[in-house]
Amino acid sequence: MAGLFIVVEGPEGAGKTTLVRGLAERLRAAGRDVLDVREPGGTPGSEAARNLVLDRTLSWSAPAELFLYLAARAELVRDVIRPGLEADRVVLSDRYDLSTEAYQVAGRGLPAEAVREANRLATGGLRPDVTLVLDLPPEVGRERQAVQGKSPDRMELADVGLHRRVAEAFRAADGPGVVHLDGAAPPGDVERRAWEIVRSRLDGTPGEERWL
Amino acid sequence: MAGLFIVVEGPEGAGKTTLVRGLAERLRAAGRDVLDVREPGGTPGSEAARNLVLDRTLSWSAPAELFLYLAARAELVRDVIRPGLEADRVVLSDRYDLSTEAYQVAGRGLPAEAVREANRLATGGLRPDVTLVLDLPPEVGRERQAVQGKSPDRMELADVGLHRRVAEAFRAADGPGVVHLDGAAPPGDVERRAWEIVRSRLDGTPGEERWL
Repeated sequence: MAGLFIVVEGPEGAGKTTLVRGLAERLRAAGRDVLDVREPGGTPGSEAARNLVLDRTLSWSAPAELFLYLAARAELVRDVIRPGLEADRVVLSDRYDLSTEAYQVAGRGLPAEAVREANRLATGGLRPDVTLVLDLPPEVGRERQAVQGKSPDRMELADVGLHRRVAEAFRAADGPGVVHLDGAAPPGDVERRAWEIVRSRLDGTPGEERWL
Repeated sequence: MAGLFIVVEGPEGAGKTTLVRGLAERLRAAGRDVLDVREPGGTPGSEAARNLVLDRTLSWSAPAELFLYLAARAELVRDVIRPGLEADRVVLSDRYDLSTEAYQVAGRGLPAEAVREANRLATGGLRPDVTLVLDLPPEVGRERQAVQGKSPDRMELADVGLHRRVAEAFRAADGPGVVHLDGAAPPGDVERRAWEIVRSRLDGTPGEERWL
């Protein structure tokens, strides 16, 4: 498959949405065809599943929460991400499978191998080319969200212990294409560093910056 | 766990709802505390997932369909079926995990072992004590539904090939506690035969009918 699949990950309040927006602008300015999506969401079915899983009036079991996220992911992969990559676009996603590892495995305690197997069913095995992880202590993320003053959803309302385990899982994440960034740094610095990584990847010379 | 977990399975139009109702009446008349449920559904979350998966305006991928059914099942098992069995009730369910094998594995072609692993996540490994399978050729089921005149849901609208594979999977089902019944027989006969099986199971002497 052509195209480039870039995922931005990290705990609540780490600056994922801001970074996706900034990277999308830089990519477009560089003449790339960009598709930016968020998880869960992005198709009628995914948005419907998103509304269910984040609904504060419902009290989902850990497996049900996993399955709703995976239903949303399956739709997004089939209807948006794969077609985008096949059309040689750069697909930027706010969250993907590392969030499942962080929230449902580390956070909720579901068995890792069974969750990974279910995730492979949802994605057909599609992995990101680059995963940019914004590391942030959970306390800082919560403070930032409090300042924004938006009403927390069901996941954001989860206990502090869960958010600690999630932040730790993001910090410990490793694997092909995974790059860590300091989510506590000024957003402009984070974006510049992320752009260096994406640019070198587009250029096909990791570690160098010959592109543009 | 105490109680008894009885599942009624089979393709559309095989008479599952009628049989569950008849068995529930007989069990109550025999002084048993009965809980009858349907899948997907039975809790606020499960009903919400049911509405999504059967919605004719949405076009779910096979994995998303699986995950919505499993989300509904996880809720029903945690909030209704397990508490019912722990309270020594007879839990009667209209569909359970054999439907996943029939529709999502045989019908949609998802890989059997990955689906079973995901189902174990949803159920925590809870299996029925008795699975009553109503066998019926798909043509007969469709005719019966047409006579009833109800508006078909998304699953009922699936192509004939799927319904043939589903009916064949139900017919081939085997394993501990699985008993086949002829769904084409008169409902009263089906119910009497099913009651013999349930009664002998309650009595703890399979194959005999000493209870009551």
